[in-house]
Amino acid sequence: MDVRELAADYAALVAAGKMDEAADKHWAEDVVTVEAMPGEMSRTAGKAEAQAKAQWWYDNHEIHAFRSEGPFVNGDSFLIVMDIDVTPKGGERMQMREVVGYRVADGKVVEERYYY
Amino acid sequence: MDVRELAADYAALVAAGKMDEAADKHWAEDVVTVEAMPGEMSRTAGKAEAQAKAQWWYDNHEIHAFRSEGPFVNGDSFLIVMDIDVTPKGGERMQMREVVGYRVADGKVVEERYYY
Repeated sequence: MDVRELAADYAALVAAGKMDEAADKHWAEDVVTVEAMPGEMSRTAGKAEAQAKAQWWYDNHEIHAFRSEGPFVNGDSFLIVMDIDVTPKGGERMQMREVVGYRVADGKVVEERYYY
Repeated sequence: MDVRELAADYAALVAAGKMDEAADKHWAEDVVTVEAMPGEMSRTAGKAEAQAKAQWWYDNHEIHAFRSEGPFVNGDSFLIVMDIDVTPKGGERMQMREVVGYRVADGKVVEERYYY
């Protein structure tokens, strides 16, 4: 599976709301995730830590609607634009719009990077 | 000027159609540009070569409308989403939607990368 094929499959799973399946299927064991902002979980290393961060996020946010667009591909990297209508636990409902970048090596996603 | 300030200024110039001014003001002398597709100008090195490529593009495309969104920032990088309603010389009018990534070092844009 080349980068453009992987990107298309990944983006289709995300568009269908199957983020977990996309991660299970395509993340490398040593995947790194990088948030735009500093903080406790601004950087994770390894699939288990990345999945724990994702689970924390799901446990602490109520998602009302989700839409994604992409992939946009260049070389070993691709981008997905995401719109999330969300209420953080104890917070105000908000419309998040962000771009998530993925870098591929040896047929697996080795880096996830949030831009906003 | 930190990355988020530079990104905001760059994106504002692009949104105003002032791509040349954004490049003049913010590109490093050794800026590298990387297209998504292979080809003669898939990679340029240096500001003069990058500006020559841009000039070639303007000379060979008629732009009917342009819209941009962003910046989306992470660390030393930022993204701008671009919509271009364009007719290539001798070709069919088309709607291009792409994301352009910029990497900053020492307060200057050192890399421009097209995703589509």
